[in-house]
Amino acid sequence: MARVGIIGTGFVGRAWAISYARAGHEVALWDGQQDAPQAALSYIEQLLPDLAANGLLNDVPEAVRGRMRAAATLEDALAGADYVQESTFEDVAVKREIFARMDVIAPPGCILASSTSAILPSMFTEHLAGRARCVVVHPINPPYLIPAAEVVPSPWTDPEVLQRAAQFLREAGHAPIVMQKELDGFVMNRLQGALLEEAFRLVADGYASQEDIDIGIRDGLALRWSFIGPFETIDLNAPGGVRDYVNRYQGLYAGLTAQMQRRVDWAGPVLDGIERDRRAHVPADKLQERQAWRDRRLMALMAHKRRAAKDIGS
Amino acid sequence: MARVGIIGTGFVGRAWAISYARAGHEVALWDGQQDAPQAALSYIEQLLPDLAANGLLNDVPEAVRGRMRAAATLEDALAGADYVQESTFEDVAVKREIFARMDVIAPPGCILASSTSAILPSMFTEHLAGRARCVVVHPINPPYLIPAAEVVPSPWTDPEVLQRAAQFLREAGHAPIVMQKELDGFVMNRLQGALLEEAFRLVADGYASQEDIDIGIRDGLALRWSFIGPFETIDLNAPGGVRDYVNRYQGLYAGLTAQMQRRVDWAGPVLDGIERDRRAHVPADKLQERQAWRDRRLMALMAHKRRAAKDIGS
Repeated sequence: MARVGIIGTGFVGRAWAISYARAGHEVALWDGQQDAPQAALSYIEQLLPDLAANGLLNDVPEAVRGRMRAAATLEDALAGADYVQESTFEDVAVKREIFARMDVIAPPGCILASSTSAILPSMFTEHLAGRARCVVVHPINPPYLIPAAEVVPSPWTDPEVLQRAAQFLREAGHAPIVMQKELDGFVMNRLQGALLEEAFRLVADGYASQEDIDIGIRDGLALRWSFIGPFETIDLNAPGGVRDYVNRYQGLYAGLTAQMQRRVDWAGPVLDGIERDRRAHVPADKLQERQAWRDRRLMALMAHKRRAAKDIGS
Repeated sequence: MARVGIIGTGFVGRAWAISYARAGHEVALWDGQQDAPQAALSYIEQLLPDLAANGLLNDVPEAVRGRMRAAATLEDALAGADYVQESTFEDVAVKREIFARMDVIAPPGCILASSTSAILPSMFTEHLAGRARCVVVHPINPPYLIPAAEVVPSPWTDPEVLQRAAQFLREAGHAPIVMQKELDGFVMNRLQGALLEEAFRLVADGYASQEDIDIGIRDGLALRWSFIGPFETIDLNAPGGVRDYVNRYQGLYAGLTAQMQRRVDWAGPVLDGIERDRRAHVPADKLQERQAWRDRRLMALMAHKRRAAKDIGS
């Protein structure tokens, strides 16, 4: 059991709170807005029974809820903390200020992790006495459903802190991606960006529609990717494994890549068409309902993956 | 009920045979190698009970098997055929020859579809009297489990043939991607290539390992992609939908894309490292066993998706 401080209790912070309390940790929630932690806890209370019903809680909702509390001050939230997850507004000045405050208050040895998706850790930790204990731990939302999280060091992050953060995540049921050095977009947004870039190009150039792209991924490529990832996929797609695959197909892919060295504007006419197609599927006033449906499907998928790993192996 | 000719009964052809017979069609299998259709049917007989057990057959195995037969000659296989799926060796000369023979023999109105993954349809149909009825229908293997299939016209494919092929696939439970014009790599290999290219770059540049990339996809991005695709994912990831998402994040992605305008060699030291990591997970002599595991997991995933669509909606 560790003591965890959740700093910033918006959508990301409250989701982390569930993940860490589920893992058995004592979680204190604090936010710059005084009423926010209580609102987050109410939201969490409504969510926990759904997670329990899908077998994703490892415990009764009351027990998980019982490990969370609202902290009145930053000092209170960080008292005795072993690990802090910061999820405040995505602005470098905001991050610099909250990290400066946290670094003064948090006990020595406490890891200070930021949920930032797009700010390099070097941008808001260089000035700190305790900069060696600062790291980015970036989730895909919501982290209580999606295991992957990126652990990103700045040039001055202590390698032992990097490993300790990764181990902390693993023990909480997460699958950490441990980066060797910081990089814009980290790993996941770069992979997503590379794929989206080609998707927008195909639509902009009139080869396929938005729906065709989604079919190609959701009814095609992402089926295997969702349990073995792209490298294991190609490793199993040639008789002699990944080397055999690269020998057979690198020439093909090199030719395709040469055709992709050009950016298209994602906005403008291509976005008009994509938005028209999307709104025909889901009208604007049904987006929230669709998001709730997505989360239910995601929960069912995670329950399926857990069962399949047990029954068939992983 | 339609009459379907399966021309070439290797791994791809036999998988299509299952898909079309399951849909209620009468399927005749022929191959240039005399014993191949019978071998394919034996293989299929072993597979059908697994599909039935996962609720993926819509029928008893015997009924599906009863709709398939080995044809002794190409003429026999194409007699009265409404749709032909060609899956011979991936070589343009081989395709040109078999399409010339099929075009002479097949009844008027019969669609001639090729499973080719990498040869543009214009490369092997230009010389044919019936070139307007020729099209590519490219699956992801195995098509009896993976719904997506690319329907790719040559410049002279009759638009009505394109739509008829797509409808034939839909009625067989497939999810056709209907391309507007031919393009190297079609849609899915281009999307896969774009993602793999960045994956190899991240590993080659020392930011992340093969396993980190697979985690980022299988425990991260591909979870949502596996049931909503990348465009619906971003449509649901900003309060105002896809336009809101592009307005917020296009700048971020443009910056990332600028860093990706360079190819790395997939072979050489990067492949040495990736292969070492993969073989540590799955030794070379266990690859076949792992492929069988992958197919069992894929079957279970498709059964889950079917259930979830029914219970939660799609």
